[in-house]
Amino acid sequence: MSLAIKFGVQFGLFGGSVQNLGTEKHHKKYLNDIGTLKLAGCFAMTETGHGSNVRELKTTATYDKSTDEIIIHTPTENDGKEYIGNALHGQMASVFAQLIVDGEEHGVHTILVPMKDEDGNLMPGVRVEDCGYKLGLNGVDNGRIWFNQVRVPRENLLNRFGDIDENGNYTSDIENPSKRFFTMLGTLVGGRVSVPRAGLSATKSGLAIAIKYALKRRQFGPNNREPETLLLDYPSHQKRLMPRLAKTYALDFALSHLAKRYTNSTEEDIREIETLAAGLKSYTTWFTTDTLQECREACGGKGYLAENRFADLKADTDIFTTFEGDNTVLMQLVAKGLLSDFRQEFHGGGYMPIVRFLSDQFLTLVAERNPIAIRKSDQEHLLDPGFQLAAFQYRERANLISVGQRMQNFIKKRTNPYDAYLRCQNHMLVLAEAYIERIVLENFIEVIKNVEDTDLKKQLKTMCDLYALSTIEQHKGWYLEKDYMEGKKTKAIRQMVEKLSKNLRNEALFLVEAFAIPDQCLGAEII
Amino acid sequence: MSLAIKFGVQFGLFGGSVQNLGTEKHHKKYLNDIGTLKLAGCFAMTETGHGSNVRELKTTATYDKSTDEIIIHTPTENDGKEYIGNALHGQMASVFAQLIVDGEEHGVHTILVPMKDEDGNLMPGVRVEDCGYKLGLNGVDNGRIWFNQVRVPRENLLNRFGDIDENGNYTSDIENPSKRFFTMLGTLVGGRVSVPRAGLSATKSGLAIAIKYALKRRQFGPNNREPETLLLDYPSHQKRLMPRLAKTYALDFALSHLAKRYTNSTEEDIREIETLAAGLKSYTTWFTTDTLQECREACGGKGYLAENRFADLKADTDIFTTFEGDNTVLMQLVAKGLLSDFRQEFHGGGYMPIVRFLSDQFLTLVAERNPIAIRKSDQEHLLDPGFQLAAFQYRERANLISVGQRMQNFIKKRTNPYDAYLRCQNHMLVLAEAYIERIVLENFIEVIKNVEDTDLKKQLKTMCDLYALSTIEQHKGWYLEKDYMEGKKTKAIRQMVEKLSKNLRNEALFLVEAFAIPDQCLGAEII
Repeated sequence: MSLAIKFGVQFGLFGGSVQNLGTEKHHKKYLNDIGTLKLAGCFAMTETGHGSNVRELKTTATYDKSTDEIIIHTPTENDGKEYIGNALHGQMASVFAQLIVDGEEHGVHTILVPMKDEDGNLMPGVRVEDCGYKLGLNGVDNGRIWFNQVRVPRENLLNRFGDIDENGNYTSDIENPSKRFFTMLGTLVGGRVSVPRAGLSATKSGLAIAIKYALKRRQFGPNNREPETLLLDYPSHQKRLMPRLAKTYALDFALSHLAKRYTNSTEEDIREIETLAAGLKSYTTWFTTDTLQECREACGGKGYLAENRFADLKADTDIFTTFEGDNTVLMQLVAKGLLSDFRQEFHGGGYMPIVRFLSDQFLTLVAERNPIAIRKSDQEHLLDPGFQLAAFQYRERANLISVGQRMQNFIKKRTNPYDAYLRCQNHMLVLAEAYIERIVLENFIEVIKNVEDTDLKKQLKTMCDLYALSTIEQHKGWYLEKDYMEGKKTKAIRQMVEKLSKNLRNEALFLVEAFAIPDQCLGAEII
Repeated sequence: MSLAIKFGVQFGLFGGSVQNLGTEKHHKKYLNDIGTLKLAGCFAMTETGHGSNVRELKTTATYDKSTDEIIIHTPTENDGKEYIGNALHGQMASVFAQLIVDGEEHGVHTILVPMKDEDGNLMPGVRVEDCGYKLGLNGVDNGRIWFNQVRVPRENLLNRFGDIDENGNYTSDIENPSKRFFTMLGTLVGGRVSVPRAGLSATKSGLAIAIKYALKRRQFGPNNREPETLLLDYPSHQKRLMPRLAKTYALDFALSHLAKRYTNSTEEDIREIETLAAGLKSYTTWFTTDTLQECREACGGKGYLAENRFADLKADTDIFTTFEGDNTVLMQLVAKGLLSDFRQEFHGGGYMPIVRFLSDQFLTLVAERNPIAIRKSDQEHLLDPGFQLAAFQYRERANLISVGQRMQNFIKKRTNPYDAYLRCQNHMLVLAEAYIERIVLENFIEVIKNVEDTDLKKQLKTMCDLYALSTIEQHKGWYLEKDYMEGKKTKAIRQMVEKLSKNLRNEALFLVEAFAIPDQCLGAEII
């Protein structure tokens, strides 16, 4: 996994910054060397004092007109670049710093700074320190970097979105500094598309190991007689592993969908894709942590032996919930994105118009809802994608409206917007989750529509049902609280989840083998 | 942590087996040397093929009348002793094996088997192999042990519950082999009393680090101006850490209560204490895993650096959910214990009489319930220990009755008991959890009653409320499904949990300092 991360830093982050934030002169000069690894680099964004709040980072890049150079400087020890992958192997860094031209601050920009000379010695003014041992990923050379008045030529500014011309004047096509900042960051969304895929790969390995073991390992049995019962024949074991197997498929399809959208993104839909990437990154990596833990425990003491892979799988992916954007911070971004998208769509200046619109629409929706539906619990109904999707959409929309309404109420009471946001924070996290879960289900249903093979379609449908119903079951408190469902129905859903898990048990081996990870690569002694 | 585990194996398991399963001759001969570490030992119970199902382990101990010896033998490679702590350092092992006297099997007994001679060489017929690297606890020498026709004198049988007399006849005061087996195992409950305490210690360290960091670390703020907001001032951060802090106190009191009961246990209440220990062990160690993960993530990238302790805390406690009894297996034991206690109490031969009795009692309870209570949501009501405890008791009792009823129905339909149990398995796990949560709350309320200091009483009451209400919130789906609460009430409970978390935030530093772990022992650079 360490290699994958170093790979991602070199090509995705370092190379990606040159490609996306630089212009033709940078592409010509560097991309070939970066692609062939002749030029190893790192991506120096995060600072000790500012991890998530990139906009407020402290490193400065001051233009010196007299020499036509940019001076990179770390003001205090706490402003050093932190946790930078490839910090020790990198010969050059994409440094994120506050650009100052003629005494005026223009916000965060990116400058290429050579770290080492040709003999591999650190350049004057550059100081690097290893971060030391980590919980995992010890094959990655994470380090801290400080700059003491380091001078680089003006053309090292990656100048796609903001430039200094030959007269020493700052220019940018994007007038608004806030918009400029988010445009720059937006081009770096690739990491958030890749990380959850790496997380899901580890999840697949974990599930494949745990399920294969559970189909070999026997313990206890009727009257303690032989043969004892296979672990996977215990309902408790099915409950641990089968809904997670189904969700792995659901997320796999969603992440492929995201990758496709990202690859074909345009200026119009990039904001939406950023929101989607931030949400899927968080949702998937939390799922990875949770599932690998469950798989480790499902293998008992054998799962604790290094030879059975969980030690590495868990440790190396543990940071995924933090890097490329802390999950909690990203989920708030998602919610903010959802709220502001709606606001924009209706040209409103505040939350008021949109909330009013939504409430109307919502009331219509509720009125149209069949009153019998809240207690309908027959199999046909529960397995109807229409019912499932409507329930997911309802949860998302109801939360969108209620967060909007709460915001509006606070603002009416002249609460300052920051405090209003704080008071809605936990609610916003629920909204973001509801949005992602709806997207994942919607996409899974779409995928199944296009499958022609009858057997395959049936297997996918079982997993889609299990994903949908186990997610509803998880939120049944919410649905019951909202009178969207009655107890009779949520009880039927729980029973259906157990039934689907039992059905899936018979397909489980096939479904983990379909991940196509050879046993040699799973690398676990127990399977 | 490795040292604590090796300590536990030497004194608790090895020493404990000699003390509890042996008789005076063994005490005189060995206990002093074990206590002074002159005789290092291990506890060879688990086998590769039989981890949880100890009763079916395969190692044999065959009495040879001609030489008055017992022959210890491992039939196949898969029957080797597995994961034995101190396997490499141990000079003697308490070996659990099927005792065979004169061709007759008498079930699992424990025999002291020397592993090494005075020069430290392995005894003939004894083979030991290191288990290799583990996810954590690499300071513990876990190993596998096989015996090939190893002979030991008859007096090495730990003979408190079953003996071979000088004429070579097997004798036991406990006629019933099943009862004998559980009596032997019962004396070893000490491990299940200690492990959750070790887990909770690690939890305290984790929470102390995460909370101290959250009171120093700032990120983002109003309009991105300084000073930025402290992490612990974010409602999302309070939600992550405060209910877990409250639960840590709740479990600390519960575990002290358990330790006291265990120390003063009698033959009458040992079964009940075993059930309690099994449940608290599982509940606490799952909580440990969950909380340390949350604390790691709450410290972001800093939490991933080894220098901040989470790597070790997480890795070393990860196995706690598995060893000294797999948590899922133990929770089933708890549920079985609860069901059979009730059955015994009413002298019934099956579930029928007890279920009938309980249903009657339960209906009375429901009838007595104030119909207004299901939507009552004022502060006084929610913070009333009477309401809280009634809700916990209701959940336990309702699950006890419904599992009992389901069992009864299956048996009526002539489902064999093992299949009936399998079909109720997930339900039994819910029952066990409800039981433990009720015990923990009951005990916390009792503790507070005896506190005289007003300030302290108030702080403890806030934590008890937070434990009670956040637990109810977690199960709100269940309460709503059962019409025990209405949506209005569960919503008020959610809001109260946020409010209590916010209140506790101001006491948080004091409350983690009250753990009295010096910063030097927390050993985290970030605090």
